[in-house]
Parts: sequence; C-alpha cells; structure tokens
Amino acid sequence: MKHLISAKQLQKTEIMEFIDRAKHMASILKQGGTHTLDGKLMAALFFEPSTRTRLSFETAMLRLGGQVISTESAREFSSAVKGETLEDTIRVVAGYVDVIVLRHHEIGAAARAASVSTVPILSAGDGAGEHPTQALLDLYTIERELGHVDGLTVALVGDLLYGRTVHSLVYLLSQFTSVRLLCTAPASTPLPDDVRDFALAKGVSVEYEPNLERAARQADVIYQTRIQKERFSSLAEYDAVKGKYVIDEGTLLVMKEHAIIMHPLPRAGEITPGVDKDPRAAYFRQSHYGVPMRMGILQHCLER
Amino acid sequence: MKHLISAKQLQKTEIMEFIDRAKHMASILKQGGTHTLDGKLMAALFFEPSTRTRLSFETAMLRLGGQVISTESAREFSSAVKGETLEDTIRVVAGYVDVIVLRHHEIGAAARAASVSTVPILSAGDGAGEHPTQALLDLYTIERELGHVDGLTVALVGDLLYGRTVHSLVYLLSQFTSVRLLCTAPASTPLPDDVRDFALAKGVSVEYEPNLERAARQADVIYQTRIQKERFSSLAEYDAVKGKYVIDEGTLLVMKEHAIIMHPLPRAGEITPGVDKDPRAAYFRQSHYGVPMRMGILQHCLER
Amino acid sequence: MKHLISAKQLQKTEIMEFIDRAKHMASILKQGGTHTLDGKLMAALFFEPSTRTRLSFETAMLRLGGQVISTESAREFSSAVKGETLEDTIRVVAGYVDVIVLRHHEIGAAARAASVSTVPILSAGDGAGEHPTQALLDLYTIERELGHVDGLTVALVGDLLYGRTVHSLVYLLSQFTSVRLLCTAPASTPLPDDVRDFALAKGVSVEYEPNLERAARQADVIYQTRIQKERFSSLAEYDAVKGKYVIDEGTLLVMKEHAIIMHPLPRAGEITPGVDKDPRAAYFRQSHYGVPMRMGILQHCLER
Repeated sequence: MKHLISAKQLQKTEIMEFIDRAKHMASILKQGGTHTLDGKLMAALFFEPSTRTRLSFETAMLRLGGQVISTESAREFSSAVKGETLEDTIRVVAGYVDVIVLRHHEIGAAARAASVSTVPILSAGDGAGEHPTQALLDLYTIERELGHVDGLTVALVGDLLYGRTVHSLVYLLSQFTSVRLLCTAPASTPLPDDVRDFALAKGVSVEYEPNLERAARQADVIYQTRIQKERFSSLAEYDAVKGKYVIDEGTLLVMKEHAIIMHPLPRAGEITPGVDKDPRAAYFRQSHYGVPMRMGILQHCLER
Repeated sequence: MKHLISAKQLQKTEIMEFIDRAKHMASILKQGGTHTLDGKLMAALFFEPSTRTRLSFETAMLRLGGQVISTESAREFSSAVKGETLEDTIRVVAGYVDVIVLRHHEIGAAARAASVSTVPILSAGDGAGEHPTQALLDLYTIERELGHVDGLTVALVGDLLYGRTVHSLVYLLSQFTSVRLLCTAPASTPLPDDVRDFALAKGVSVEYEPNLERAARQADVIYQTRIQKERFSSLAEYDAVKGKYVIDEGTLLVMKEHAIIMHPLPRAGEITPGVDKDPRAAYFRQSHYGVPMRMGILQHCLER
Repeated sequence: MKHLISAKQLQKTEIMEFIDRAKHMASILKQGGTHTLDGKLMAALFFEPSTRTRLSFETAMLRLGGQVISTESAREFSSAVKGETLEDTIRVVAGYVDVIVLRHHEIGAAARAASVSTVPILSAGDGAGEHPTQALLDLYTIERELGHVDGLTVALVGDLLYGRTVHSLVYLLSQFTSVRLLCTAPASTPLPDDVRDFALAKGVSVEYEPNLERAARQADVIYQTRIQKERFSSLAEYDAVKGKYVIDEGTLLVMKEHAIIMHPLPRAGEITPGVDKDPRAAYFRQSHYGVPMRMGILQHCLER
C-alpha cells in the first residue's frame, strides 16, 4: 500500500523520484494528457473546504484518464451530522475506489485513515499537521525554478507555527545538504520545536531572522505564508500578527536577482499585487506545478 | 420507462434478475470495469445530503463507462431558495441526461418525479418513505453471504418506524417463502402497520421480540439500524430510544455460527467496534455490494 | 482568446454562427454525443448557486467527450473565507484547465476574470449584469420554434430591471431587423436606461405596455421572468411587484396561434401549471436547447 501521509516518510531518493515523475508528467500535459489511469477511480473526501487543492488533485486524475468522485462537504456524511467515525467512512469508500484523497481538520486523521484503508490514502492536509503533496510541489517548484535544492538559503516567512505547508516543506528540505533556513516569523508563531529539531538533526542550519528585509537580502527562496485567522484562538492575537511581514515592491529591490518568491496561496495581502509582474514572483507557477506533481503521485500509487 | 421508485413494485423474478445482474457486475468490477454505458449521462440530484449513497451511485455509473453530473445541494436550486417545484426541476434535468438518481426529503417525491420525467428515475430515498436500491443491495448481501433468502429468520433491530431502509427491505423479503421477521424495536418505533400488513399478506411471519439477545439467538440475519436523531420530534423521545439496542461482543457469543450482522450505515454506536473483526460482521461488505447492484440497476435502466 | 463575457460583444453574424453550431450539436446529441473534446478540461466556478446553469454546462462538456472539475461553493475558496481576490483564483485555476465557466455575484466579475486569464472565460452570469449564454440559447429557442428573429414582436414581462437574462437578450435582439419590444413591467422595475438606449440606437422599437393581455395579443414571443426576491432591497417592494404579471390559461386564449411562451426558469408562480400542456409553452424545450448551444460555445472556444 502506497499511502502518502507525511513528508517525514520521504527520503531524498524518493523525493527526487517524485520530482522526476512530475517533470515527465509536465511533458505529458503539454501533449494534452494521457490515458494511463483509464478505469481507475479517485475519491476526493474533503472534511474542510479546500477547493484549490481538491481541483488540483481532480485535474491530475482526469488528465491521466482516470475518473473522480468527490465531496466538498464530507463532514455532513460523517461525524458531525450522523456520528460516523472517520474510520468507518474510509472503510466504506475504500470499497468504491482505487485511491482516496483526504483533507481533514484534525491532526493525525490521514494516519488514522491509512490504518483501516484497503486502498492508498493521499493526505491533502490534516488540521495544523502536514500537507505532504504541497511540500512535494514546493520542492518541485524550487527544482524547476532554481535547478537544485542543495545549498540553498530559504526564508520561511509568516506563521510558522500553524502553517502546515511550512512543516511539511521543512521535512523535505531536511533531506538535502547545506540547506539554511531563515525563520522570519512573529515571536508568537515560531517554527514548532519538533519541526526545528527534525531539521537540526538532519544538519540543516536553522536561524531566527525576524527582519524581513535582512532575510530577503540573503534568501534564494522566500517562502511567504498566509496568517490563517482560523488557526488563532483570539482576534487580538491574530491582529497583532497579521500584516507584520508583507512582501512588496521594496522587497524586490533588496532580493537577489535569481531568487524566487513562493506562497502556497491563497494570499490575503501578505504579497502586494505590484509584486506579481516581477519574474521572481513564482507563486502562480508554483500552483500550476501542483498538477504534474499530483499526476506523478497518483500514477505512483496506482501502478503495480 | 424503467423507474425504480418502490421496492413494492418488484416481484421475486425481478429481484432475482437484479441479483444475477449484480453478480455479473461484481465479476466485471474485478476486471476493472467496462465501457457499456459510454456516452450515457447520469444526474445525481440530492435534496438532502447522503454522500455515501451518492458516491456509490456515481461509482457505479463511472465503472460502467458512463458520466455523471451531480449536486450535493439540490435544495438550493429548487423550492427552498427560488420556489421551483420538484416537477419543474425534473422536467429540466430530464432534458440533459439519460437517467436521474433522486434523493429527496419528502415521502412520495420519487413517484412525483417519475410522473413527469422523460428519463428513468431511480429513487435514492425519499423522506421516511422508501430506499429501494438499498433494499436490493441488502438482498444481494444476504444472497452472497448466506446463499439463499427463502426460509431465513431476519431480526430487524432498532428504529423500525422511521428507518426507510427497513421498510423497503421488508417489501423485498415478503416476496420470498418461509421468511420469519423478528421485530426488535422500542415500543415507540415499531414497524408501521402498512409495512407489517404487507408482509403478513404475503405469508411472512412477523413477530415482536423486544429482547435483543433472544432475537440474536434465533436470527440468520441481524439487521441493525441507526436511531436517526433527525427523525424524532423531541430530544427526550430520541434519548429514551437511543442506545437501547447495541450489538456488542456479548451478542457475538449468542449468535448462530453462520449468521450475519448487517447495517445500512452510518452507525453511531449501535454496533461496537469490537464486533468489526468477527467474520459475521457483514456491514462493510454490504456497503461494497452496493456498487455492483447499482451498476446492474443502471445497466438495466439504460439498455434497450 | 475567445472569452464570452457580454452579449453586447456579439454581432449578428456571430450569433447566427452560434445558432448554426447549436443546430449541428443538436444532431450530434441525437446520435449520443461525440468525443471532439476528448482530453479537454472545463472548470465550473460558481460563486453563487445556480445548479441549473452549472449542470447544463457540465452536460454540454461531457457530451462532447471533455471532462469537468466543479465547485458549488466557490465563495468558500475565495474572498469570503480566506480573503483571496477573484483575479488570484482565476490565475490559479487557469493553470489547471482549458476553459473556465464563471458564475459570480458581482457585476463585471467576468470581465475582471478575463483580464487575467490565460484560458477562455465563459460568463454564466455576473450579479445583476449579464448572462450571455442564456441569451444565446434564448435566441436559438426563437429560431428553432419560429424559424426567424427578424420582424418579431417580443413581450418582455416581469422584472426587467434586475433580470440579467432580459438585458443580455435585448442586446442580441438588437442585432436583428424590425424587432419590436413590448416592456410589460411594473413601474418600479423597468428596463434599465442603458439597455433601452442600446436597443433604440440599433433601430429596435421599444414600447411600454404595462397591460399583460394587450401585450399577449400582439406578441410572437412572450418572455416571462421571475421576480427575484433576492434582488429587492425591501420585502414591501417585492410584495408590491410579485404576482402582478401571471401567465395563465386566460393568456392562452388571447395569444397568437403560433406565438410561444418563454421563461429562463426557475418559475415561482408567474406561469400557472395549467399552461404547461399547451404546445405554445416553450420554456422546458428552451431549457433543453441550452445543452446544444453550450456545446457549440465550448467547441468554438476550444477548437483551434
């Protein structure tokens, strides 16, 4: 069974295999897709809304010739209304399809699903936990845009405590050599200790750099994140953090010429529109890289 | 026009034909599906959420090579917001597709839809009324698990008043010979008189057996149901009924060796997780039998 | 790039081309569809619910052999919850698919989307603005039912102020010769000045005829509309207007023998059910004409 639950489970060789698969899928996409997954069926079970991620996965499956069943409101068919456990939901749906893409609001949900599923579970994010396919497409973005990952300085900007895409990204970056992380975060939302310790144990340099301009001057990759209102317990706490780190045209002036700006999207003001036209603004390209990466992941899970 | 509105409309010959079709479809599924419904389009119109049933029907259609249009929130496009009648909705959608799967919150909705539709209507449940495809997959489950239906003792457990799957199942069981029903229900939610009378008129033995253990000792099939909170008018009434009939590991000790436990799912505590690993726990297999049964029904409706 | 944003952008030659395409698609539908858009992918992004229009577009795409990704609750993935702009949403989704069908609650949204999209945008309605594909299917209906558009008298009945389908229809009718419009509307919801002036400038005769019976006697086409509660600022205003213009069996008695009654649907009482069986009741046929018209539009946008 080829579940994808956590970025932690991936070694460098596997990450590079996924990147190679994604490159291959990108060339297939240029030719208008393929039919290698003809007859295969994917379920998209989303217990919290994430239309972007859902549509990206569905696109990937359809571009491979597969089919999709989908729910935007999985909560309704499960615990919230009728008291069903996630495990029961998975046991039922696993009997319908060949692969399940799961988005859930609780940390650990993907692992729980995998423990009872007879088909591969691909996590599309679980609570403030992980989002491994996002991390893989982020790595693919870096590889496509900069040609390599080893030796890069990556500034992680914004909410590093609740931002699950950052956590999964750090796990992947930790597999590479001579990586330097700059944590450009409010004191209230630092990188969690276990994530930082994972990186340090793998030989990554992890530095606290609260000044965005200083981080921008040094970084090859600026990974900006959204301050997610829904992750904060009080509005006061959110307001204090929000808007502290905004990338604008001033940031462009101090950045390296070949650096890139990434963002998992959606953004809500933390990158100003004036930045979009700069070729170093890689975030929309990044969102598009998700399709070939997810095609590669699906193909990997469903091939014998 | 081959509508499927009520289990009452089905004679034993037809039920057996559907079971034979489902067996055939199960073998097709093992080979990875087929393309016999290539070019055919199914609409899933769900006026109340039932993701499980919707996904099961969509899976069936896609596994046959057909395509699907779908709505999880049909109420929005109809009466609630814009004042449209169900009949108008059906008249419109029948002009788009080849078959309509309808789930509605009002008893009789499927028959009303069929009366104006130019394409087959397959009821996926109407209010506290009927759920004929669930009953067919239940019969198919019994046939697959026990090899026959005639002569069986079936314990119906839980809410027999509001549980529409039970009503449809009783109609189908009534077509078979020497069937004995044990009604293991709270006094407040007995089998409705008309359903009971239908069974009696067909020669079925209908007995009231309020003791779960005594029922479990005698039954070949224990058909457990969920007490549906949303069907009760008061919380007090619900609380009084809830949890009165729970199948647990103690039940396994008194059951016949070859008996099976069924449940239309979702469950909410009325079968404890400890029961799952017993081979007599047939409820997840039952949910999977729904796909080949619905494939057979769709094929039947859409072939010339 | 072949966007379809406004009916105003269409000249008579183009309208007739779309009508010819729709006729061709109608014959393809009779043969069970085609595969000309095999490998193409359409996104249906609906920021306000319109299941009828969404299902019509999805049907069209699937009947052409294409595939669909879809959201009924696009608001959730955008501004409302996470603060994303429509422009960002479009930039992302345009990287997934080959064409985007957009329904939005704000006037001008479709044009904003088109300004940043790398794939065709087809407007499926924007606020109280326009609904160009509805207008094209309305024209196609007139052509199919009456054989021509030039020289017709069209009574526009009901809410002409907020009814966007009427606005788009008037723009298209204005491309034809000797067209006479009768505005049968409450004083509080007249045809907007700019729409009226557009028609007048094109040589259309625009007359105010508040009496439904007098309008019905003269019209070749009675275009009835729903009074949309959600467009009114007060309930009192809505109640005053609602029900003032109801087409019933009395209307049938005064209508021309070859006239037709159209309605964009859903209806909510403004055409009584007794009218349905009259052959001049064209509104359900009209809803079905939407599929071949949208097939023609999609084919037009996606072919080289």
